[in-house]
Amino acid sequence: MRMALIVQKFGGSSVADAERIRNVARIITGTYWAGNDVVAVLSAQGDTTDDLIEKAAEINPHASKREMDMLLSTGEQVSCALCAMAIEALDCPVVSLTGWQAGFRTNSGYGNARIKRVKADRIRTELDKKRIVIVTGFQGINKYEDITTLGRGGSDTSAVAIAAALHADLCQIYTDVDGVYTADPRLVPNARKLDEITYDEMLELASLGAQVLHNRSVEMAKRYNVNLEVLSSFSGKPGTKVKEVVKNMEKSYISGVAKDKNIARLALVGLENSPGIAYKIFSLLAKNNVNVDIILQSIGRSDTKDISFTVAKSDMDLARKVLEENRDSIRFDRIDVSDNIAKVSIVGAGMVNNPGVAARMFEALFNAGININMISTSEIKVSVLVHIDDADRAVRVIHDRFYDELTGEQ
Amino acid sequence: MRMALIVQKFGGSSVADAERIRNVARIITGTYWAGNDVVAVLSAQGDTTDDLIEKAAEINPHASKREMDMLLSTGEQVSCALCAMAIEALDCPVVSLTGWQAGFRTNSGYGNARIKRVKADRIRTELDKKRIVIVTGFQGINKYEDITTLGRGGSDTSAVAIAAALHADLCQIYTDVDGVYTADPRLVPNARKLDEITYDEMLELASLGAQVLHNRSVEMAKRYNVNLEVLSSFSGKPGTKVKEVVKNMEKSYISGVAKDKNIARLALVGLENSPGIAYKIFSLLAKNNVNVDIILQSIGRSDTKDISFTVAKSDMDLARKVLEENRDSIRFDRIDVSDNIAKVSIVGAGMVNNPGVAARMFEALFNAGININMISTSEIKVSVLVHIDDADRAVRVIHDRFYDELTGEQ
Repeated sequence: MRMALIVQKFGGSSVADAERIRNVARIITGTYWAGNDVVAVLSAQGDTTDDLIEKAAEINPHASKREMDMLLSTGEQVSCALCAMAIEALDCPVVSLTGWQAGFRTNSGYGNARIKRVKADRIRTELDKKRIVIVTGFQGINKYEDITTLGRGGSDTSAVAIAAALHADLCQIYTDVDGVYTADPRLVPNARKLDEITYDEMLELASLGAQVLHNRSVEMAKRYNVNLEVLSSFSGKPGTKVKEVVKNMEKSYISGVAKDKNIARLALVGLENSPGIAYKIFSLLAKNNVNVDIILQSIGRSDTKDISFTVAKSDMDLARKVLEENRDSIRFDRIDVSDNIAKVSIVGAGMVNNPGVAARMFEALFNAGININMISTSEIKVSVLVHIDDADRAVRVIHDRFYDELTGEQ
Repeated sequence: MRMALIVQKFGGSSVADAERIRNVARIITGTYWAGNDVVAVLSAQGDTTDDLIEKAAEINPHASKREMDMLLSTGEQVSCALCAMAIEALDCPVVSLTGWQAGFRTNSGYGNARIKRVKADRIRTELDKKRIVIVTGFQGINKYEDITTLGRGGSDTSAVAIAAALHADLCQIYTDVDGVYTADPRLVPNARKLDEITYDEMLELASLGAQVLHNRSVEMAKRYNVNLEVLSSFSGKPGTKVKEVVKNMEKSYISGVAKDKNIARLALVGLENSPGIAYKIFSLLAKNNVNVDIILQSIGRSDTKDISFTVAKSDMDLARKVLEENRDSIRFDRIDVSDNIAKVSIVGAGMVNNPGVAARMFEALFNAGININMISTSEIKVSVLVHIDDADRAVRVIHDRFYDELTGEQ
């Protein structure tokens, strides 16, 4: 067999206890004995990070992010050392490396740092010695040599960054689901696993709350053309490949249905109909680090207009506060705020060549008596806002509409 | 007040939980607000290290020392980050540093590394910024940039090494006892706390099992003339100063009585009375990393002689095995091994100028009907081996003999 360089990433649930760490060690050594070079990137064990956050909160609820990173980065160091020991027990040459030892250089954004580069010399040296290399995900150091963490989705991003730096043949993301599904299998029993999906579709699914892969890692994979595979560390089955172009794209209208309940909608009612008002609002929000998702502008009564937009639920109060404080310069009648909404979306690279996909989605919702609040579309995505209590049912009826009618062919 | 640079070290019991960490933060900031530069060296919290060792043993009881150090070094990183957070909560500028960030360079002896040097540039920079610096004890990195730990007494040694590198005015070792006592206070109720003690006396007491300071750290303090103080992180009282020369040395015959139950005695009986035999025996044991303590040689019957020596209890079986395996080259009749013995010692720089100190010790033991097995003396120490069941009583009668008769003056 031709020797390949494979990066494997294992999340917190995959290394939660001794038995699972042994399982991960078997996957890694199996790949190694098959003739491949292996770099494995690990998250902290199960609840470790939450436990550490709790410990910190007991001592200082307003601890600096710099010290939080110092604290949290120990979690991956523990899981990596333990995994290396499990691999030693299988008589395989192995070495574990922290973020700084593995060459992760980041900016200084403690708690949410960005990777600037991976100086992979040490990893290469260890691979040359025919060792399996275990690397802590989620962390690096900045130019001051202080430890930083990468924030949400950090370990996936670490794995893709290493794969890019080493020009790896494949980056496998092991998780507790065995791939990307056409909908959440817990919600839609007949949801199907996809064999392949494009980066763009995966990006839309990830940002829509599918929670399989974080979009930071998918964006990086797309940029550096890293072949990804999402698969289960428990089932042993092939997973879902994420790549630039997939083979049977023509056949499928949509590749998935996703929902996101973690959103809130703000509506500014009675804005003056003057130019530059949208710029003013959204630059103000950006300055305060509020990420805005869907934006909708509509004509109000007489000379006014309304602007609605969605944000993450956690940003709702901040967004309202920022807007209220600038009421005089923006000028509006009132702000309506609602967090009992959810976003339901269909994603598919095929929909651009198949007219009527959006209409079919709306029809399914209409037949189920589900009211649509807002609509937003892109080339490969249609999103609607519905009442939060309707969200799960919306996913099911949309999924049924697209998959069941095709009698297994889709 | 003249500004001083003070290094403070806090052991595992001093940082065992949130309340104790807050207490340590108050001690550190109190020293800082009094106008001093402060570097604090911390151990891992309470049972953290034992918990990590247990986790490792579950996965691989024969894990490499390299990976054990990777694992164990997280313990101090957690306690240091938490302590820095507690100091932040007191509105004091602070930064925590790992062993490698603080510049600890060691040899490659994983699990028991020796400090080669402390490149204290980073610590100095932080002190120049008027920050309190919290440093992980017990750890460093070797020339491969791999994490090493210093083994037993490592955190004390870290603190003394920093104090030496920074030419600190004082190195305070905070622990759960409030100083060095003339005997173990749990054993001898009228034991007294010493205000001062010399390095040499402290070395003898430490190696004799007094367990207040590890002798590695005292040796280093003596070599670099670092002023030490042993004190309690709970009582707030002044502790015991350890220095080159103490003021009222003339007054005291002995500075302490110590016992060590963790020893075993081996006796080689019927050795040939030829030159080089002792060299052969003890170089063999040294090659096998067996540390020998007391050595006694006596004339046996006719042309033979006997050699007895003591080792740590944990080395007893190894020592016997090494000697048995080399029976042909050493040539002896038999080995007697005993581990139901204890070593009881008196230590005092004053005894060299006061004849009869040893005799008074033997007299006390004779009056109490305690049999002496072996005797060993140095300039500032007299040690005897007694039956393990007699050890505690031996300490008490010796302490009474030296301290009570002096009616409080000693």
